[in-house]
Amino acid sequence: MTNYPIQVRLSETKKQKPLSDQLEFGRVFTDHMFVADYFEGEGWVDHRIVPYEPLQIDPAATIFHYGQTVFEGLKAYIGKDGKVLLFRPEENMLRMNKSSERLCMPQIDEENALEALKQLITVDKEWIPTTEGTSLYIRPFMVATEPYLGVSPAKKYKFIIILSPVGSYYKEGIHPVKILVENEYVRAVAGGTGTAKTAGNYAAGLRAQEIADRKGYSQVLWLDGVERKYIEEVGSMNVFFKINGEVVTPMLNGSILEGITRKSILELIRYWDIPVSERRISIEEVYEAHRSGTLEEAFGTGTAAVVSPIGELNWRDEKIIVNNGETGELSKKLYDVLTGIQTGELEDPFGWVTEVTETAVVKSV
Amino acid sequence: MTNYPIQVRLSETKKQKPLSDQLEFGRVFTDHMFVADYFEGEGWVDHRIVPYEPLQIDPAATIFHYGQTVFEGLKAYIGKDGKVLLFRPEENMLRMNKSSERLCMPQIDEENALEALKQLITVDKEWIPTTEGTSLYIRPFMVATEPYLGVSPAKKYKFIIILSPVGSYYKEGIHPVKILVENEYVRAVAGGTGTAKTAGNYAAGLRAQEIADRKGYSQVLWLDGVERKYIEEVGSMNVFFKINGEVVTPMLNGSILEGITRKSILELIRYWDIPVSERRISIEEVYEAHRSGTLEEAFGTGTAAVVSPIGELNWRDEKIIVNNGETGELSKKLYDVLTGIQTGELEDPFGWVTEVTETAVVKSV
Repeated sequence: MTNYPIQVRLSETKKQKPLSDQLEFGRVFTDHMFVADYFEGEGWVDHRIVPYEPLQIDPAATIFHYGQTVFEGLKAYIGKDGKVLLFRPEENMLRMNKSSERLCMPQIDEENALEALKQLITVDKEWIPTTEGTSLYIRPFMVATEPYLGVSPAKKYKFIIILSPVGSYYKEGIHPVKILVENEYVRAVAGGTGTAKTAGNYAAGLRAQEIADRKGYSQVLWLDGVERKYIEEVGSMNVFFKINGEVVTPMLNGSILEGITRKSILELIRYWDIPVSERRISIEEVYEAHRSGTLEEAFGTGTAAVVSPIGELNWRDEKIIVNNGETGELSKKLYDVLTGIQTGELEDPFGWVTEVTETAVVKSV
Repeated sequence: MTNYPIQVRLSETKKQKPLSDQLEFGRVFTDHMFVADYFEGEGWVDHRIVPYEPLQIDPAATIFHYGQTVFEGLKAYIGKDGKVLLFRPEENMLRMNKSSERLCMPQIDEENALEALKQLITVDKEWIPTTEGTSLYIRPFMVATEPYLGVSPAKKYKFIIILSPVGSYYKEGIHPVKILVENEYVRAVAGGTGTAKTAGNYAAGLRAQEIADRKGYSQVLWLDGVERKYIEEVGSMNVFFKINGEVVTPMLNGSILEGITRKSILELIRYWDIPVSERRISIEEVYEAHRSGTLEEAFGTGTAAVVSPIGELNWRDEKIIVNNGETGELSKKLYDVLTGIQTGELEDPFGWVTEVTETAVVKSV
C-alpha cells in the first residue's frame, strides 16, 4: 500500500458522543470521513481523511438529476480484548464495483478502499460503541459530481466513507415483525437496477413503505414486477422461509439484491446440513404451506437487523401467522451464531472476520 | 403574490457569456439560481435568488443514498419584440407535484414556483440567447437533504431552479436519428417510478444508452418490462409512429412519462383532424407495418429536441428503415409549428405561451 498515501487532516474539535443506550440508526456521525475524487482520464486522486463536513457540490451535478450513485453498508464491532472487527468487508467492496458497473460509474481499487476504511475507523476508533448489540455502521458511497445536464455517465465522482455509531436493532430482544404483501408497487424488475445497491431502488420503495406504516406493518414484502406472484425481498432485506424442514430463499434472478448476510446465512445453513434451496417461491406457495401447517418460519436478512423474524404476513387481507407469531428456533440460532461470529464471541470457522489493526493509521499520517 | 416575498442577493461578478454558436446543452449556467428550503412541520421557507454556487449538503443526506429527488425541464425563448416566452410552464409545476407524490416528497405551491421562475429569468434575462434555435433551458428540481441513513422519506428538502443557455438541438437542420431497440435492459415497469420525473429512471437507462452509443446508435427504444414487446419510450423521449395514415403513440400505462411535448403534439394532431390513437403498440406491429409498406413516419418528442425524427430502428439486427431515412412530412410540420408557437413566430390558438413580464422582478427587490 506504499503507493496509496492517504492525507489525514484531523478535526480541531471533537463532537460529543451519544450515550450507548440512546443510539438510534444512522442519525449521528463521527468526527471524520474519507473522501477521494475521480476525474475521467486521471482516475482516483486526493485520497484524504478530513473532518466530517457538508459536501460542496454544483447544483447541476449528475447525482441531483440522474441519480448516478451506489452505496454499501457494513458494521465494525469491538470484540474481546478491545479488538476492532469487520465482517466480510471485501464482499462489500466487490459488490460496490458490481453496482458501479450497472450504473456506468468507475471502479474503485477494492484493496485500497478497504485500507481507507480501516484507517478511517482507526482515526475514529473511540466512536465504536461497546454495549451489547451496538456497533459502528460504515457507509461507503459514490456520487457523480459533474455539472452537466446531458443524460450520460458523468466524468467526475466522489468516493466517500462515513461512520455512524448505531444502537441495538433489538432493544428489547429479537422479536418478530408484521409484514404487508405489496400488490400495487414494484421495487425492481429484471433488466432494471434491482441487483445494484443504488438510490433509485430505495426511492421506488418509499411510497409502499409509507402505506404499510400507516396500516401498522413494519415492512412490505415485494413481489416480482412481471407476474406479481413470486417473492423478491422484504423491505430492504432478503427473505427466507422454512417449509416442511427445508429452508427456501428466492433465487438471484436479476432483480434481487445479492445480500452478504443472505450469502452468509446460506453458507451457515449448508454447514449445518439443513436442506436449503434457492429457487422461485410464490406467495401462493407460502400461503398454501401456512394452510397445510408446513410453514415453520420466515425471516428477513440484512446488515442492519442481521436476522429479522416474520410473525405475520398480510396478503390481500388474509393473515398468514408464522410460528404463532413467535421467533422460530432456526431464526434465533442464525441470529445468535452470526452476531456471535461478527462480535468475536464465537469461533469463526469461515474466515469471515477481519481485524482492524492499529498499524494502518501509523502508515498514513 | 404579496404573501410570497423572494429575497434577491445579486452576484458581485458576472460570468462571461458563451457565444450563441458555441452553445451546447446543459454545460453553462447563468449568474443566479433560486433556492427555497423545506422543513417538516414548517413548510417552505427562505425563498431566495442568490448567486449560482455549489450546494452545501451533509454527506448523510437522503439524496446521496436513497435518491429522493424530482426534476422538471422547460425552455424560455426570446420572441418578437424581445418578449420572453415560456411554453406551458404550469404543466411542469403540476407534473413536478405528481412526481413528488410518488417519491413521498412535499408539494410545492405551483403558482409561487412559477412566479419564482419568472423572477429568476428576469434577473438573468440577458443570458437568454437570441440566435435561431437557441433558448434558455430551465431546470427546477427538488432534493432531500436530511442527514439520516434510515430508509424513509426525509424531513428536509431544497427546491432549486437553475438556468442554462442552450444551443440549437439541430445545428445542421432537423435530421433523423438511428435507434437501437433494447432487449436486455428495462427503463421502468408499472408499479415502479416510470411516470415520475425522478433520477432513478435516468440512472437505470445509462447502461443501455452507453451500449447503443458504442454500436453507433443515438438512442435506445425501450420495451415494456413485463412482456418485452410493447413500445414505451425512446431514450428520454416519448415516441410516435404514423402507420397507414394514423398516428399512434403508446398509451399512458403506469410506466411511461406523461410528456408535455407528447400532450401538445396529440392536441395539435387532433386540431388538424389527423387520425390518432393512444394505445399499446408492439415492436412486432411496427416491424410488420415496415414490411407491408405502411410505416410512414416515426419520431420522438421531448423538451430538448421538440420533435426528433427516427430514420432507422434496429430490432434484433433487423433494420427497419423509416421513410427512406428522411424526415417525414408530419414530423417536419409538427416541429415547425410547435417551435413556431414556442418562439412566438406563429399564432398560438391554444393559449400555451406565457409571457414573462418585467413587473415580476420589480416587486421582489
